[in-house]
Amino acid sequence: MIIIGVMGGGSATDNSEAQAYKLGKLIAREGWALLNGGRAAGVMDASAKGAKDAGGLTIGVLPDTDASQTSQYIDIPILTGMNAARNYINVLSSQVVVACPGAAGTLSEIALAMKSQRPVICMGWDPGPVVANMAKTGMFVLVENPEEAITEIKRLLRDLP
Amino acid sequence: MIIIGVMGGGSATDNSEAQAYKLGKLIAREGWALLNGGRAAGVMDASAKGAKDAGGLTIGVLPDTDASQTSQYIDIPILTGMNAARNYINVLSSQVVVACPGAAGTLSEIALAMKSQRPVICMGWDPGPVVANMAKTGMFVLVENPEEAITEIKRLLRDLP
Amino acid sequence: MIIIGVMGGGSATDNSEAQAYKLGKLIAREGWALLNGGRAAGVMDASAKGAKDAGGLTIGVLPDTDASQTSQYIDIPILTGMNAARNYINVLSSQVVVACPGAAGTLSEIALAMKSQRPVICMGWDPGPVVANMAKTGMFVLVENPEEAITEIKRLLRDLP
Amino acid sequence: MIIIGVMGGGSATDNSEAQAYKLGKLIAREGWALLNGGRAAGVMDASAKGAKDAGGLTIGVLPDTDASQTSQYIDIPILTGMNAARNYINVLSSQVVVACPGAAGTLSEIALAMKSQRPVICMGWDPGPVVANMAKTGMFVLVENPEEAITEIKRLLRDLP
Repeated sequence: MIIIGVMGGGSATDNSEAQAYKLGKLIAREGWALLNGGRAAGVMDASAKGAKDAGGLTIGVLPDTDASQTSQYIDIPILTGMNAARNYINVLSSQVVVACPGAAGTLSEIALAMKSQRPVICMGWDPGPVVANMAKTGMFVLVENPEEAITEIKRLLRDLP
Repeated sequence: MIIIGVMGGGSATDNSEAQAYKLGKLIAREGWALLNGGRAAGVMDASAKGAKDAGGLTIGVLPDTDASQTSQYIDIPILTGMNAARNYINVLSSQVVVACPGAAGTLSEIALAMKSQRPVICMGWDPGPVVANMAKTGMFVLVENPEEAITEIKRLLRDLP
Repeated sequence: MIIIGVMGGGSATDNSEAQAYKLGKLIAREGWALLNGGRAAGVMDASAKGAKDAGGLTIGVLPDTDASQTSQYIDIPILTGMNAARNYINVLSSQVVVACPGAAGTLSEIALAMKSQRPVICMGWDPGPVVANMAKTGMFVLVENPEEAITEIKRLLRDLP
Repeated sequence: MIIIGVMGGGSATDNSEAQAYKLGKLIAREGWALLNGGRAAGVMDASAKGAKDAGGLTIGVLPDTDASQTSQYIDIPILTGMNAARNYINVLSSQVVVACPGAAGTLSEIALAMKSQRPVICMGWDPGPVVANMAKTGMFVLVENPEEAITEIKRLLRDLP
């Protein structure tokens, strides 16, 4: 099963949530599983809802020791009890990581993905040259919207070793 | 989705593997997802194969940073890169933990489950009084075979908060 | 620097705390650093106090994201934010692990130590045959008191690869 | 004991290593412990050597399960066995984090520090606006050299809650 990671802020603008929702939908329509941070907030909740509305499978890798903060749109909650150390698991477990707009947590996931040779697609924002310069050629891509993200995921999946 | 953890040795006897295979099958037939350590070895491989042969969904929480040692019967590999620290995630993410015969890794999962208030069913072996005495009443059960394990899982799921 | 791990219950009897205090003192007198779970409770607090009273160095590997529950007798708090997953770090970082009486957390540390080829000395209690059978020859020892523990630590340090 | 984290590349330029060495020396002269990633490479090795040459105490939080890659200048190796998830422990355990030039691993530590409300000083490089914008006021500082870093550490330690 192909697993696509969707990262992004636990607090997000309406537009970011709408884009994350649409991305989740498109991921599910491709038959891919969606993996995110699993909480009932921001990009996590919106992308999981999108995937479920399109009949997809959703995996949440949570920082918590119990399910009290888990999104209702998560099928498989992985409870790590490890707080932000779970960000590393998020990216290792994803074939491709899509980073929606976010704050320091999202930036840490982009960086950990690059360190772990997981390709990263930034959707709707640009973290700037520090990130672009650190990525291997072709492993870091900027896109504007969910449709472009899907196109790039397909290309990256084709090129992965 | 109900997630049942199946722990047990990476090297196992033929009988242990046969029992783990059967347990995996019965878990899948109940419509539960099976979670284990994800590797292509011992109780992990056998229980995942059983679940897949009955059309179930399988989750593997791996110690590794890549998928090279993942069982072919795992649908959803969660790559933690955390070696034995992933044992904690295994038990936190399971509503009920079934411990098949195993060695120190399995014992650590039993202990971490008890510490985290996850009920434990030991199937086909008895780790002795040290374990029984540490568990809360009704949260540690010994059974002989997969059929009894399923009966106890149902009881525990009914009684969980 | 030689690092000796001291594990044991966060809630402990007066006698267990007295023994842990004495063990901490003797460890410090040998010039070894003492490592434990770092909290201001039970065996952790008592063993760290013993080491400090003898002028030793103390390391606490904490489950927490901040220092609010750290024992005042810990020199070096390592904040993991990983709850019980930190038990794995405790044993990996210790050349020899002494397990004072404890509950499920302590048992998980004994099991993780054995899995990671770290020798274990049980002081003042016996977790029973399940543990003894899992350990490699000579890597699991029962002792009655801190003086015997020190003798065994010295022997194990001499024999380690 | 005050613990100052020094992050930076496992492979580093001669100039970066010279600056890291000097920073380590100055940290030790203040009586602070130095914490880093612990390996015998790049900024880690250089900063630990600097601290030891000035009689300081050094803590290494390693990704490894054994000590084979540990710098000889580390007094206290904390073996996590958790690969890059240990980056989270590095920053949680530091009162102030100094980020020397590095790659994706260092960027992840900057991001995790900001997420965890640990102040970050970037020495000799600037990761750009994405980082500056994410930090709370006064919690992210750029400096040119070790002397300036020490001045800023003192200011931050004074202002911390």
